[in-house]
Amino acid sequence: MIGGGQGAFIGAVHRIAARMDDQYELVCGAFSSDPAKSKASGLLLNLPDNRIYNSWQELIEKEKQLPENERVQVISIVTPNHVHFAPAKEALENGFHVILDKPATFSLQEAKDLQQVIEQTGNLFCLTHTYTGYPMVKEARQIVLSGKLGKIRKVYVEYPQGWLSKFEEGTDNKQASWRTDPTKSGIAGAMGDIGTHAFNLCEYVSGLQIEKLCADINIMVQGRQLDDDGAVLLKFSNGASGILVATQVAAGEENNVKIRVYGEKGGLEWQQADANTLKVMLLDKPVEIWRTGGGYTSSFAQQNTRTPAGHPEGYLEAFANLYKNFAFTIKAGLEGKKPEKEWLDFPGIEEGVRGMAFIENVIASGKSEKKWTDFTI
Amino acid sequence: MIGGGQGAFIGAVHRIAARMDDQYELVCGAFSSDPAKSKASGLLLNLPDNRIYNSWQELIEKEKQLPENERVQVISIVTPNHVHFAPAKEALENGFHVILDKPATFSLQEAKDLQQVIEQTGNLFCLTHTYTGYPMVKEARQIVLSGKLGKIRKVYVEYPQGWLSKFEEGTDNKQASWRTDPTKSGIAGAMGDIGTHAFNLCEYVSGLQIEKLCADINIMVQGRQLDDDGAVLLKFSNGASGILVATQVAAGEENNVKIRVYGEKGGLEWQQADANTLKVMLLDKPVEIWRTGGGYTSSFAQQNTRTPAGHPEGYLEAFANLYKNFAFTIKAGLEGKKPEKEWLDFPGIEEGVRGMAFIENVIASGKSEKKWTDFTI
Amino acid sequence: MIGGGQGAFIGAVHRIAARMDDQYELVCGAFSSDPAKSKASGLLLNLPDNRIYNSWQELIEKEKQLPENERVQVISIVTPNHVHFAPAKEALENGFHVILDKPATFSLQEAKDLQQVIEQTGNLFCLTHTYTGYPMVKEARQIVLSGKLGKIRKVYVEYPQGWLSKFEEGTDNKQASWRTDPTKSGIAGAMGDIGTHAFNLCEYVSGLQIEKLCADINIMVQGRQLDDDGAVLLKFSNGASGILVATQVAAGEENNVKIRVYGEKGGLEWQQADANTLKVMLLDKPVEIWRTGGGYTSSFAQQNTRTPAGHPEGYLEAFANLYKNFAFTIKAGLEGKKPEKEWLDFPGIEEGVRGMAFIENVIASGKSEKKWTDFTI
Amino acid sequence: MIGGGQGAFIGAVHRIAARMDDQYELVCGAFSSDPAKSKASGLLLNLPDNRIYNSWQELIEKEKQLPENERVQVISIVTPNHVHFAPAKEALENGFHVILDKPATFSLQEAKDLQQVIEQTGNLFCLTHTYTGYPMVKEARQIVLSGKLGKIRKVYVEYPQGWLSKFEEGTDNKQASWRTDPTKSGIAGAMGDIGTHAFNLCEYVSGLQIEKLCADINIMVQGRQLDDDGAVLLKFSNGASGILVATQVAAGEENNVKIRVYGEKGGLEWQQADANTLKVMLLDKPVEIWRTGGGYTSSFAQQNTRTPAGHPEGYLEAFANLYKNFAFTIKAGLEGKKPEKEWLDFPGIEEGVRGMAFIENVIASGKSEKKWTDFTI
Repeated sequence: MIGGGQGAFIGAVHRIAARMDDQYELVCGAFSSDPAKSKASGLLLNLPDNRIYNSWQELIEKEKQLPENERVQVISIVTPNHVHFAPAKEALENGFHVILDKPATFSLQEAKDLQQVIEQTGNLFCLTHTYTGYPMVKEARQIVLSGKLGKIRKVYVEYPQGWLSKFEEGTDNKQASWRTDPTKSGIAGAMGDIGTHAFNLCEYVSGLQIEKLCADINIMVQGRQLDDDGAVLLKFSNGASGILVATQVAAGEENNVKIRVYGEKGGLEWQQADANTLKVMLLDKPVEIWRTGGGYTSSFAQQNTRTPAGHPEGYLEAFANLYKNFAFTIKAGLEGKKPEKEWLDFPGIEEGVRGMAFIENVIASGKSEKKWTDFTI
Repeated sequence: MIGGGQGAFIGAVHRIAARMDDQYELVCGAFSSDPAKSKASGLLLNLPDNRIYNSWQELIEKEKQLPENERVQVISIVTPNHVHFAPAKEALENGFHVILDKPATFSLQEAKDLQQVIEQTGNLFCLTHTYTGYPMVKEARQIVLSGKLGKIRKVYVEYPQGWLSKFEEGTDNKQASWRTDPTKSGIAGAMGDIGTHAFNLCEYVSGLQIEKLCADINIMVQGRQLDDDGAVLLKFSNGASGILVATQVAAGEENNVKIRVYGEKGGLEWQQADANTLKVMLLDKPVEIWRTGGGYTSSFAQQNTRTPAGHPEGYLEAFANLYKNFAFTIKAGLEGKKPEKEWLDFPGIEEGVRGMAFIENVIASGKSEKKWTDFTI
Repeated sequence: MIGGGQGAFIGAVHRIAARMDDQYELVCGAFSSDPAKSKASGLLLNLPDNRIYNSWQELIEKEKQLPENERVQVISIVTPNHVHFAPAKEALENGFHVILDKPATFSLQEAKDLQQVIEQTGNLFCLTHTYTGYPMVKEARQIVLSGKLGKIRKVYVEYPQGWLSKFEEGTDNKQASWRTDPTKSGIAGAMGDIGTHAFNLCEYVSGLQIEKLCADINIMVQGRQLDDDGAVLLKFSNGASGILVATQVAAGEENNVKIRVYGEKGGLEWQQADANTLKVMLLDKPVEIWRTGGGYTSSFAQQNTRTPAGHPEGYLEAFANLYKNFAFTIKAGLEGKKPEKEWLDFPGIEEGVRGMAFIENVIASGKSEKKWTDFTI
Repeated sequence: MIGGGQGAFIGAVHRIAARMDDQYELVCGAFSSDPAKSKASGLLLNLPDNRIYNSWQELIEKEKQLPENERVQVISIVTPNHVHFAPAKEALENGFHVILDKPATFSLQEAKDLQQVIEQTGNLFCLTHTYTGYPMVKEARQIVLSGKLGKIRKVYVEYPQGWLSKFEEGTDNKQASWRTDPTKSGIAGAMGDIGTHAFNLCEYVSGLQIEKLCADINIMVQGRQLDDDGAVLLKFSNGASGILVATQVAAGEENNVKIRVYGEKGGLEWQQADANTLKVMLLDKPVEIWRTGGGYTSSFAQQNTRTPAGHPEGYLEAFANLYKNFAFTIKAGLEGKKPEKEWLDFPGIEEGVRGMAFIENVIASGKSEKKWTDFTI
């Protein structure tokens, strides 16, 4: 693991997700750019001293030299955005598979470069867009793909948070600090941090691609350097339209990602606050409540569920599904087998490149006086 | 009553609303432009033959000639939009108070003309934007005005319906017919029919006025003549921003108007599907569930509630609140008293003019390639 | 109307319910046992002086003497329980139809006597068990009767309130005063006031009759004279079992009546707080959300719905459905027609007798050391 | 681990729970009474051949002989009820700490014997009553203990399932088979399997003990040998009363444990289907929605939460909290430190003995013709 030292949020989440299904073992780490902090963090995680590194460079270099059956196989990179590309590239080029926290990189160009590296090395890559790991989000996609809702007309996705309603970066809130710092986050704040999740979710569930967008991008809290709020009108490849909301100043909201998709014959709705429920609406019929663990759900949902219906699975399980499917895919490769289609259903570099394009396009649109900005990559 | 004959929807709603609190008696009507239908409708409503008129013109003319203690005092106009202005003007100029279904008129110009008539005649006018009649919507406004949420930053309002997902105007659905017919509805379909409700609701609750907007206006069903779907980015007078959604092709949705408002210190959420509940969120505190009938609610909510907490009041009661407050205001006038501030809290011609301006601005924005269109009246 | 003067709760509800569908006109009243209060109340309701009576005896006597086309046809009795039987009997025996607030009478014997009077006079009688007036409660009954859920096994009904958590009868709360006074309420407090509603609801929806019960009846607030809390184990005629809860000391609860019924093949759930929703669960399928106004609902639901799906109807509309169906039934009689089956679906004296038997049996069981008490009438 | 081989349900849950917080490593197991199946299961779990045992007896014997730094420290027992006592006793007496799935044992006597063993050996013991591991259940207990609700008057707990609505034990459903088999489950079916959870939950949250009960115990599905349905009236030590429901024939229900507690000043409600929410009701105030991760929650909730508010944690996390707190307590012991009070908040043998007493008392009451049965141990 690269990043995720003491005080980090997402590193611990990655580690729990990795452990959940017993497909990974944490064997080494460079947990911080500060060697002392990396060391302290590694010891807390019960790593042997010699597998705790001072830097990600050292990690890759030293691990590469270990015998194949000892050295790390998959490197998780959970650093702030400005330290995504370099370690990912280096890891891939040195023969490691990579799990990378979103958004893929600091800039679109880096993402495109990374895509090339992945293609050239043939190593596997997973981008942790957590929400697509939920069984009921997978089910939503399958329902849309099945044609049950008819041609899709509307996609509404929203990601409201309230935790940046005050000038948190002025306190010692580390999460707030780097996420609002353009040197670490990139050109976008909320749009990069949670907008990319919403973007990924809406393309994943709808099976459509955004072609044009029109963004209202705002900094609502005085002194902040990056956007903390935005709303985007969307036009999709098939003529559908929609809205994407990402805000971190919806005071009182937690983290309630929600998506609604409507087609000619019906619609569906999912929200993280009730993550094991999928509302399926068909014209002139009672709304149906599909549930994680339901015997009527698809293999994509069922293979990503651990307990019988009624035992709620949550965010960590969704995250773990990404890790598990990635592991199964790697193993299939090692065994020369073809991975099952359900295992391959995790986000990769294509989603990463599109996510970075979203950031660049949405910020450009926010500055434009024209209504529509083409979605270009 | 003018309009509201057999087969109409909103006419019956107006009559129930008027009866609910025993402040009105139906004494006469011109229920249809077809005299035979008007007659039949009036008889079904137990009106005496001589108070059922062949046309709204006849109604106004004949009623005016009746002795003061016999003739109708308030005329409800519940016709399609193209028959709003003329009867309203005539009624007001002949000394009657007017209750008019939304949107105010067929065009903005008519609304401005009507405003002049109202000012000149001094008669009273109520526009039935139902949603502002709900006790918890009134409470929401009071909470915002109280400053409890701090300066408002975000306003999200949405009005999703699914009933026009198919080409209903091709069947004998009368509601669909006139609402999608530009000669009866005006230049807007969904934006006029439900978008104006959403617009009114967001300005009412937030206490703010929209200054600029950016609209994506669509016709999603082939063959339809007016918009059945739209999304609008909003900029408010105080710097706040927001989104307004009005769609009639969200297949599977009923009529779930919803509004969310967030300020610097907290937010609130109300939706018609759970109309007696108001979610109040304050930073770093548990969300509070305010309820119709709660002893802690304001006089604006309490005076518009008929039963103790836990006995759900709904759409008809909200509608009746408009009628009741209008009646109390008229009575106060008759008695030379000053109406209470809670009674005056019903929509009038100012809301009507702004609503018509919304229609014209939003349709203009939908056609514009510029991102922002100023909200002009 | 007998009872329902100033300060009463349920009288005003009856009057709104009667007005809602324009089938009734309030023509006379004896609103209080105090003549002055009766007069004042009647004037507020715009009744002519000569139709406001000093006592219910006077009302019946004088109205009887009026010409048939002038005199009252239906008498609503909305007094406390100890003034139910005498006026109801007198009204029926003098040729009036009667609407009576629940519970039917002060004692079971009175209810049985009243049943005889009704049978002998042939006049019509409606007991206002409001909850059976909700469209989705009617739908629930129709679903059970249709066999869709298979043989019924379990019935859970609960009626939690919190308003008597303190010694309210020690304040000037009139509602609390008479409801906790054995000389006015009868032998039961909560069990009579709300337990009878729950009892009626569970027999109505399940289509079953209770045969045995086992009650835990409590007075939780010191100084109170009647039960304010109880729980009852139920055995039904077909072998099903269940639970009935009625409590007025569930601090913080409003009035959230709820019923759940489960059969061999599925179950259903309805609660007043979300009154337009009926949850229908079938084994191994997604739960279905049936909604008031849904095109798929039965004629029993549809004929008791006033607005399209998505416009919430509430408690007053449910109440009005009782009034409307009773009016339609009376009219059919006057016209010598057979009333439609949907109109006849209102509670009558059979429900009244069973409700009073419930009170006597449940209180007896509460005092018994035996587990099961037979439900006797 | 003892038990939990292929095809088992709860064994896998225990293993995930153990892994979640990196406090345990699976080092050995006797996964089945069938040695071949034990072996196969162990290999799938990547255990070395020599640590996979043919029987629990062998596991204890062999592990005991390993050097202290190699041998297992904590033994999880996840077998059917009839194989709880013997391995638990043996493990404890041979120096191992024990985690045992509920209910504690096959009979009350065994539980009391086990209690003695625990006291004599001084080894630590955890009983996995999962629901007390949820942060919001812990919060509920803390709120009750704080006195915020006043003296408790009512406790309603329910555990409805529908999965045994048919004669599942007639199919090859292994879970159904042993749970309905008196030689494996003991004298109770539903009451033992889920009734004990409900019992534990209500005593945990209310801080009260049941003193008397009155049970209606049923077998609803023909051919079944043990109860699949029951309802129990409860009397608590402080005069409070309540109801406990445990049924496995509520067709269409999943696993929706729910508890409501009401005191003189307010109440609270928690249900597993919305596990991160705790409804707190105070008289005459808006209901408050307390949430996992809220900054206002107690240390008991916060120390059992892994992610910021809005990232749902579920059943596996609740289970993991038991494991984690048990591990922290063991570690504190090893380090000679006093464990924090939050760590000690896991169910132990006292809860186990009371749970077994509940089973015996509730089944006795079900057979009794007397209303109340004293809760005896």
